Amino acid sequence: MLKGYMVPQSPEGKSAATPAPPWHYASYCIAVEYWTDPAAISALLPPGVEPDSEAKGRAFFWFLDWQFTASDDELTDPARYQYREAFLLVEARLDGKPVNLCPYIFVDNDAALARGWIQGYPKKLGSIFQTRSFAAPNPAAAPIVKGSRFGASVSAHGERMATARIQLEEPVADPTKVFNRPTVIRRYFPQLTAGLRDKPAVNQLTLSKMDDLTFTQVWSGSAELTIPEVAGEDMHRIAPLRVGKGYRFSMAYSVTDLPILRDYLA
Amino acid sequence: MLKGYMVPQSPEGKSAATPAPPWHYASYCIAVEYWTDPAAISALLPPGVEPDSEAKGRAFFWFLDWQFTASDDELTDPARYQYREAFLLVEARLDGKPVNLCPYIFVDNDAALARGWIQGYPKKLGSIFQTRSFAAPNPAAAPIVKGSRFGASVSAHGERMATARIQLEEPVADPTKVFNRPTVIRRYFPQLTAGLRDKPAVNQLTLSKMDDLTFTQVWSGSAELTIPEVAGEDMHRIAPLRVGKGYRFSMAYSVTDLPILRDYLA
Amino acid sequence: MLKGYMVPQSPEGKSAATPAPPWHYASYCIAVEYWTDPAAISALLPPGVEPDSEAKGRAFFWFLDWQFTASDDELTDPARYQYREAFLLVEARLDGKPVNLCPYIFVDNDAALARGWIQGYPKKLGSIFQTRSFAAPNPAAAPIVKGSRFGASVSAHGERMATARIQLEEPVADPTKVFNRPTVIRRYFPQLTAGLRDKPAVNQLTLSKMDDLTFTQVWSGSAELTIPEVAGEDMHRIAPLRVGKGYRFSMAYSVTDLPILRDYLA
Amino acid sequence: MLKGYMVPQSPEGKSAATPAPPWHYASYCIAVEYWTDPAAISALLPPGVEPDSEAKGRAFFWFLDWQFTASDDELTDPARYQYREAFLLVEARLDGKPVNLCPYIFVDNDAALARGWIQGYPKKLGSIFQTRSFAAPNPAAAPIVKGSRFGASVSAHGERMATARIQLEEPVADPTKVFNRPTVIRRYFPQLTAGLRDKPAVNQLTLSKMDDLTFTQVWSGSAELTIPEVAGEDMHRIAPLRVGKGYRFSMAYSVTDLPILRDYLA
Repeated sequence: MLKGYMVPQSPEGKSAATPAPPWHYASYCIAVEYWTDPAAISALLPPGVEPDSEAKGRAFFWFLDWQFTASDDELTDPARYQYREAFLLVEARLDGKPVNLCPYIFVDNDAALARGWIQGYPKKLGSIFQTRSFAAPNPAAAPIVKGSRFGASVSAHGERMATARIQLEEPVADPTKVFNRPTVIRRYFPQLTAGLRDKPAVNQLTLSKMDDLTFTQVWSGSAELTIPEVAGEDMHRIAPLRVGKGYRFSMAYSVTDLPILRDYLA
Repeated sequence: MLKGYMVPQSPEGKSAATPAPPWHYASYCIAVEYWTDPAAISALLPPGVEPDSEAKGRAFFWFLDWQFTASDDELTDPARYQYREAFLLVEARLDGKPVNLCPYIFVDNDAALARGWIQGYPKKLGSIFQTRSFAAPNPAAAPIVKGSRFGASVSAHGERMATARIQLEEPVADPTKVFNRPTVIRRYFPQLTAGLRDKPAVNQLTLSKMDDLTFTQVWSGSAELTIPEVAGEDMHRIAPLRVGKGYRFSMAYSVTDLPILRDYLA
Repeated sequence: MLKGYMVPQSPEGKSAATPAPPWHYASYCIAVEYWTDPAAISALLPPGVEPDSEAKGRAFFWFLDWQFTASDDELTDPARYQYREAFLLVEARLDGKPVNLCPYIFVDNDAALARGWIQGYPKKLGSIFQTRSFAAPNPAAAPIVKGSRFGASVSAHGERMATARIQLEEPVADPTKVFNRPTVIRRYFPQLTAGLRDKPAVNQLTLSKMDDLTFTQVWSGSAELTIPEVAGEDMHRIAPLRVGKGYRFSMAYSVTDLPILRDYLA
Repeated sequence: MLKGYMVPQSPEGKSAATPAPPWHYASYCIAVEYWTDPAAISALLPPGVEPDSEAKGRAFFWFLDWQFTASDDELTDPARYQYREAFLLVEARLDGKPVNLCPYIFVDNDAALARGWIQGYPKKLGSIFQTRSFAAPNPAAAPIVKGSRFGASVSAHGERMATARIQLEEPVADPTKVFNRPTVIRRYFPQLTAGLRDKPAVNQLTLSKMDDLTFTQVWSGSAELTIPEVAGEDMHRIAPLRVGKGYRFSMAYSVTDLPILRDYLA
């Protein structure tokens, strides 16, 4: 009897690419608000998701240093269960309600990639870094105070995909007013069998359900963001026309479920 | 209209984790024949695949340096389309006929991981190396001659998963007599939705169909292989009890189809 | 006129492997106290450094997540200037006074490797991870409280060199009583010229001078540590016979000078 | 008694960052001839090396897949002893004679970096790839025939430093007429001690002496090369104004000595 929530399955189930839910996540985050061409966002929306004309092309570029654990003390095995991530959220509508959609996302860990594809996050591998804040005082420590500067970047296959910098100005009293939209993703798994390639095996809109979502130490400030054109990638098509505020904070949540919003095969 | 065989899909389709088939592959390979506990192989077989009592626990451990191209000159972008791989094939039966089954496989590239999951190869990320042979003569060149020694290894998350060494003895006249079984894999994609976790979205046995399969410069010789126990992995349960011959060769094939042998959801 | 503190030098000096001092460092650290065979430590001491018979084989294994800056806002370029490190300090004597000596050290960044060799730290490349503590509460957050568990590991060339775990018990009132020895290192640069290989170009004992050294949030607790034997490495010869306390803390300092304690070429 | 040609030294000498000479190297290479601004080359020359006015800004950008061995079968441990490299050679004069100078070089392995610094190659870490040629025929195989296309790239810290492509046209009868200049490098090791920073500990011009140098399977063809501007690097200052021929070949040599051409401290 094979065990394992994900492949590879084995008699003990230890080798699985990711342990079974619940999945618990804690992070430090840098997020940069920006506006791109609304037509470029519309062109990225999967069937069923509509443009949000009031958003005027608003999007957020996120960088995250994550620590993960399931139910077996995984956080004490950081070589397997820490990872870094960068993703984009663009503002859209589903059934007339404001949502975020995630069109691009990069991680540096295969367990994170597996969980992403299972949820609907279109993850690829990347190399992601963000400035950290340290408790011991020093010119290298980047304390959480007015004037501190943080940088972040994501690269894939040795090409720089995005670079951001922010400078802290003030604490944010209520981050749920900033990060206030649910995130919709597309769960998709193709066919390779000849004659069936236009019929994916899985094609759903899902909700990225975040249990016990908390934001801590949230600061905002000024921001810079570039998304250069890179051969073999399309992300620069939603490069910033104007950059808004930058945010730096700690965030945590757990994943125990995946609501299916649309099933295009049902 | 979104394009892309695989996520992430975009208006131009360039960002997709893998281009659409046909997929063309060329490689150098080191393969080591060995025998493990037949009960350990039986314990790894998915439903529908039966033990091969005549195989007496026979398996092959493969290491491969791959170059990939689809239809758009991908081979000239080696930072994206070269990758290294290590996998195990264990001997089994399907409908009474001899087959190989692939229970564990590691690659160092996300496009290769995506193609693997789409076919049914249970890929995880690893760091894989094999001794290469160079045309210019030198003590470092490892020419394809009697007595040349080749090493290979695979690591994951900084743990050594397997190490092999072979020493060439003689050319192999007919490699199709050595590598003579079709490979069966399990295409599997889980559910995360609460209440549906024991009902995978995809659960099939598939055939790894290799068009225009060629073997070139095939040599055999003596071999060593170790598969140590590693925390958080099960692969050592099929570690060698006895090691047979080692092989070194070039191999190429193309993928254009995926025959579905069983569909457990149909 | 070429510029650059270190090679490669260029007209602008931007390409140098490391910027000029002062060098500022901030970190989170996990350190594990242990005792090994005193004879194995004695065998590792360079000329001029004597065994510390009172130390009875005491050593510390450190894991560090570092952020670095020089004078040009380097900390906002984390892809270049963050790095992870693992090293060993063994207790010894110099001129009869208690010191630490660093026989092995691993980093994941070339600028850190360059600075290390310039000081006398015998750095090699490795892959290093430690559990982090996050502000947002969650089972993955590892808060700095009694009972929290942290893991750490270092690998090189895909081989696990050391693994540690600690569990926090209580704050440490005065960390300078724990980390109370100066660290001596051997600055060494060999010759390649035929006939001169036994005459290194640089051969000195130096002091790792740490300006404005601070320790913050220092906790101690129970600890585990393993240093397995790995082909092609000698570090297991100072593997633990007994493990003492584990520590987790933030540390920072600056480097502006390198006192030369002995110069064997002068 | 400590052993080891390079740090870290230990009683067994196994941990040393590189084994002792002789050092044997075999490779596949892609080299692209180009011309840049002669003034940009002059600005890069160290004291004692003069511009070559007849060269008119000629340079070569090289990409190399290397296999290394010393005297202990290192080539069978490819996880430690294979590496990839990219470097630039610019044409100059020393004592009136034509030479190459190496101003920039990237490798993906610490043993290679150590050997480079010991010789005078100003190595930094990078991620380097080149299209390979495989014996088994397939659209992915890139055979050594007229019309075959090869690509190559080098990245550092997630930034693309250079990208090349070549298309094979014809075999080269005598490669020693193309690659006909000796290579001069600057062996340099700085001081950190306060007050001594303008007095490097080592400052020499050396000759990259290559014993038993062989070229095999040398083809030339058309070529493309880009060296984009990257924040924090100066290499783009010698970007191509015009690109010449591309070359693809196997090369091997051994290193047993380092002639010192100038010693600025003597």
